[in-house]
This record gives sequence, C-alpha cells and structure tokens, in this order.
Amino acid sequence: MTSPTNVNSSSLGHVRIVGAGLIGTSIGLALRKAGILVTMVDSDKAAQSLAEDLMGQSAELSGDAKVVDLVLIATPPLAIASVVEQVLDKGPDMVQNLSNLSLTFMDVASIKSQPLLDITETALPRGRFVASHPMAGREIGGAESARADLFQGCIWAYDPHEVEPQSLALALELISICGASPLAISAHEHDRAVALASHLPQAISTLLARQLNGAPDSYLELSGGGLRDTTRIAASSPKLWSEILSSNVEALKPLLIGLRSDLDELINNLESPQFLLQFIEGGNQGRARIPGKHGGLSRSYTQLPVVIEDKPGQLAALFDECAAAEVNIEDLAIEHSPEQFTGLITLSLSSDDAAKLFIHLEAAGWKVHSPR
Amino acid sequence: MTSPTNVNSSSLGHVRIVGAGLIGTSIGLALRKAGILVTMVDSDKAAQSLAEDLMGQSAELSGDAKVVDLVLIATPPLAIASVVEQVLDKGPDMVQNLSNLSLTFMDVASIKSQPLLDITETALPRGRFVASHPMAGREIGGAESARADLFQGCIWAYDPHEVEPQSLALALELISICGASPLAISAHEHDRAVALASHLPQAISTLLARQLNGAPDSYLELSGGGLRDTTRIAASSPKLWSEILSSNVEALKPLLIGLRSDLDELINNLESPQFLLQFIEGGNQGRARIPGKHGGLSRSYTQLPVVIEDKPGQLAALFDECAAAEVNIEDLAIEHSPEQFTGLITLSLSSDDAAKLFIHLEAAGWKVHSPR
Repeated sequence: MTSPTNVNSSSLGHVRIVGAGLIGTSIGLALRKAGILVTMVDSDKAAQSLAEDLMGQSAELSGDAKVVDLVLIATPPLAIASVVEQVLDKGPDMVQNLSNLSLTFMDVASIKSQPLLDITETALPRGRFVASHPMAGREIGGAESARADLFQGCIWAYDPHEVEPQSLALALELISICGASPLAISAHEHDRAVALASHLPQAISTLLARQLNGAPDSYLELSGGGLRDTTRIAASSPKLWSEILSSNVEALKPLLIGLRSDLDELINNLESPQFLLQFIEGGNQGRARIPGKHGGLSRSYTQLPVVIEDKPGQLAALFDECAAAEVNIEDLAIEHSPEQFTGLITLSLSSDDAAKLFIHLEAAGWKVHSPR
Repeated sequence: MTSPTNVNSSSLGHVRIVGAGLIGTSIGLALRKAGILVTMVDSDKAAQSLAEDLMGQSAELSGDAKVVDLVLIATPPLAIASVVEQVLDKGPDMVQNLSNLSLTFMDVASIKSQPLLDITETALPRGRFVASHPMAGREIGGAESARADLFQGCIWAYDPHEVEPQSLALALELISICGASPLAISAHEHDRAVALASHLPQAISTLLARQLNGAPDSYLELSGGGLRDTTRIAASSPKLWSEILSSNVEALKPLLIGLRSDLDELINNLESPQFLLQFIEGGNQGRARIPGKHGGLSRSYTQLPVVIEDKPGQLAALFDECAAAEVNIEDLAIEHSPEQFTGLITLSLSSDDAAKLFIHLEAAGWKVHSPR
C-alpha cells in the first residue's frame, strides 16, 4: 500500500465519517487523497471494516490526531439528529475521543428541511450544523462502490443560513477537496428543486419497473438499453427512498399530479401520430434543458474492443498482455450471452495507452478493433 | 481502410441495405468484416455516401458481384412496404441490377405486425420476407454512430412463421455474422413484448422529460445521474417514435392504463412511509427481472470485492489467480480514480466460484472481502 502523496495544509485535520455507505466512503477516499485523517463509523461492522481497508491508514491513528474537526453524517436523513445526539453523548459507536469543543457537523442527505427541523430538537447549537447535499450518487450503494472522484465536477448544494463562519469554512473546504462546486441555496428551495430533478425521476422509474412484475419471462428477453437506463434507479434502497419521498410530499405531490394529467392526455391521444409527434418533441425539449454532465467524471477514455473466446483463462491472458504492454486499464465492460462462444471486452484507457495496446495486441494475434 | 481478413464462405454474397442509419450501417459494417459485399442505399445522399465510405469497398463493385442475395430494409417501419415495392419495380433509388429472382427481404424495425400486414399489399411472396428486430440501438442515430460490434451478444428477434427455408437460412446467417443470438417469436408476441420492454419506457421517459419544461433553470442545476438516465431516451427521434407508438396502440394502451392506476395509488399514499417502502421494493423486484446486459437468461451473480494497488500488472496478477483457481469471471467492475492509491475490483461469479475464489485469494494474501 503506498502512502498519500499530498501534504495536508488545511484546517481539516481529522474528519469522522458516520455511515460507511457509498457517499460517506467516497468522501472519505477523497479526503484521504488530500492527506486528511479519516475515521469511519458504521453500525454495520462489515461495512466499516471494508471502508477502513479502503482508507488504508490505520497505523496513523494515534495521539493528537484523534481530535476531530468535523463530523460528517452520511446516514439516511431521518437518522441524522440521533447521530448528532449520540456523538454529543459520546455514545457506544463513538469510541474515539471527541474532545474538540467547537466540533462542526455536516450532513449530506437528499432532503434538507426535515433534518434542519430535527436538529433543533438536539443540544447542538444551530450555527455548527451545515446542511448540504452533493448532487452525485449511484443506484448501487455500499463502500464497495465508493470512488474518490465521485464528486469531481459535481454541484454540492449547502444552506449557509445561520451557520457560524468557522463551521461554514470547514464545510466549504471539504466540498472543495472533493472537487465539487458549492451552490448556496435555502433548504426550502433545495427541496423543491430536488423534488423535480431527483425525487420525481425516482418515483417514475420505480413506477415503470413495477410494471415488469407479472410479465412473461420471454417478454423481458427483449429488454434493451432503454429499459435498463430508465429503470436503473428503480434498484435504489427502499428504506432510504421511502424516507426521502415521504419527507418531501409538499413539493413532490403537485409534480406527480401534473405528470398524471399529461399521462391522461397521452392515453386519450395514442392513436394520433400528430399528437405523438408533438408529445415526443416536448420530451426532446425537456431533456435538452438538463445541464451538461457536471456530475461525476470529466475523464474521457478511449475504448478498445477485443473479441475473446468466452472461457476461463482468456481474461487473464488478455491482462497479461496489458501488463506486458505496460498500459493502465481504467475500466472495462464484458458483453456476452450464454451459449455464445465469444465475448466482447471493451477496455477503457488513455488514448496513448490505447494506441500502444492496439499495436501490441494486434501483433500478438488478438481480435482487437480500432480504438474509438 | 484495411481489407476484411475473413474469407467469405457463406451463401450471403451481396447484401443490399436500404436505410443508412445507425442500424443499417452497423449491419453493413459487420457484414463487411466477414467479407460480404454490401451496397447501401438511402434517400439522404449524404448518409448514403458516409455509409459507403465506411464500407470501404467500392472497387469491388463489378460483374457478378452485383447479384443481390438479400435486401435488408432498415427504414422507419411505415416505409418498409414501399421500399419493397420500389425494389421490385427497380425504381429510381435501386440503380444496381437486381436480377436475382429468389431475392430475400428482411426488415429490422421495432414493430412487426404492421409491416407484415403492409407487405401483404405488395407483390412480394410472403415466404421471402423475414420480419426481424435486433434488440440493440442507441439514442444517437446516423451512420456516424454505427459500429460493427453493435449487435455482438444481443438478442435478435425474428418471426419464422410462413418463411421459406432458404430465406430463413439467409436471415439466420446474417444474424449470426452480426454476433447476435436469434430468438424465434411470433410478430404478435413480439409486439406485446416490446410494448412493455421498449415502448412503455419510451413513453414514460418522454412524459418525465416533459415535466422539466417550465421549471426554473436553477432547479435543473441540481440534476444528477438519475434524471439524466431516466430521460436519456426522451431525446429519441419524434418522427420514428410517433410511428412506432401509434403502430402498437393495442399492446401499449393497457400498459399505460395500468401504470396510471399505480400512479394514482402512489399519489394517494405519498404520506405513508410504509406504503412507499413496499412501492419501492416492488420497483426493485421489477428491475431485477431484467436479464443481464445483452439479453439471455436472467442470472444473479455473486460479487467478490478485492482491494488492489492501482498500478499496471495488478489486474493481470489477479486474473492469474482466477485462472489458477479455475473459476469463470462473468463480469467485473473497476472503481478507482486517477491518483487514488488503491483500486477496488468487484468480480462477478457464480456463488460456488465466488466461495472457491474467496478462499484461494485470502490464502494467497489478497485483500479480498466476503462474497455478497
């Protein structure tokens, strides 16, 4: 295991992250890259252990380093206030010393009004809690899906209202280290915006996926990329999303009613190609309003397709070639179907590495296709 | 432009493709790779010219090679019958000699009953028309998006009913050359299946994207990957999709009505976390019914997370271990970011293989986590 190379020159010395899921662990990885000490706590000890392994730093946990500057709460939204209370009470999950009296708390949940309301019930001074929400995520949760660059280039909303300057500075520092762009927005406006941009898509994706229950298996054999993409987030956590949706009814309900009225119109005009033309054009226009992909990765890799025999040992042989060519594989996708004797491997690499590997693989007799 | 390396030993000598869009051109590229002569025709001369350039073969167009074995029609569905008529009449776009009396026709449109009905109005014997539909596509169209491997590993539906053996053999040969798995299904069943797996997602994605019209720009700043994925196909062609949806009303309408009834229930129970929990669980179940990436039977793999150092050679070393353990890796995901000092490899295997590999890797000192 190599050590982080960046020296920590920031005011964030030690961040305690409560919740070793996708978001918490990804933030932990980004902070570690910047040389900041991160300790992870999770009621699920297997998740905590995987997250700690990914941080790769346990030897450094000693002495003054234990003083925590910021507690980042990455739990489902309705658990936030009770985590704050546990930390203030130095409860059973908070085994490390938390003697820092000016401790700042920050959450990253998808709704903001309800957690802020819950926080007023705790002993925490309002000014030391920063309500925030990074606009990044994946339908697959868990530490095993975490990535240090999950927030790179994405918008990170936060509510600056009533927050002490020192706490705000720490929160903005964390956002900056994660590579995100801070966006100041009131909790109320945030909740209205995510009702449209996040909660409505979740509800509709789930609604669509539910229609697949009861269909013959043979129908699902004809699934394509469209169905897969539109239902991707239908795989999201029921516990987390029932909390989110039921905490934002005021903003979400009118949107669902508006969509239903559009759906009625569609059903009544399904026989009319002219209506359908305008209907789909309206969808084109709505889709075009979504800003460019600031979420996630700004890396653009070159793809190198390789057709291999679908049998054990072929992938190892391919990766031996990659190692021999001294190239770094950034990602890959495997496409094959049962009973098909070939598979398509699409390797993602830098354009230089792709060009190098293409020549290498072609010379070695692999069925490699031109980089794209 | 390199020459095709494979020798053509098939009965497909010359395929005429009408419609130089994404699907037609991708099929052309796959056939060319197998050494088959391809001629492209499109009413849009720029598209035809680009497709011809991509085929890279014009010098070969001479003499006997002009005899066409199969006409592949890759136009919007409602144009299919008129293309057949044009070809039979040797109309203005059909400049090459089409003297082959036993010419087979094959279409690749997203609906099957209507084109088959339209075909009965032409002079073409029913037995020489193969209705088919490759389950692959992209929301971006055009010859410029075409790829020879677009169909690799995907399901390709076709209706064998009433088709002459010789025509069927040619169609199956084309499907096989494209690397797809043929699936025999009646036109009627096909249309019911795609109403669920393709047309309903299109209608719902459009419906969702339409709700973005009229929203404040600032709300859309909070767009994440979920909104982007659920509305991706809302960018699809209005002309093509108004044809498709209005040609499949009988199958699509009941599905839209079913979804509306689910939506009503959601609106009426939005305040109930318990209802929402079950609602989202139902979506999880529906989503889980979608088969793996490119069709084939639904398989659920076991995931094995392994933390590795992010440097060249590590993946090869890991796959050498997999080969030594004699397990078959079905898929894998690589999670890491530039400058991150560890990478997480999640291997997908059968549960037996996962258990076997876990023991093997742990004994060999790898940072492997429990299968999940």
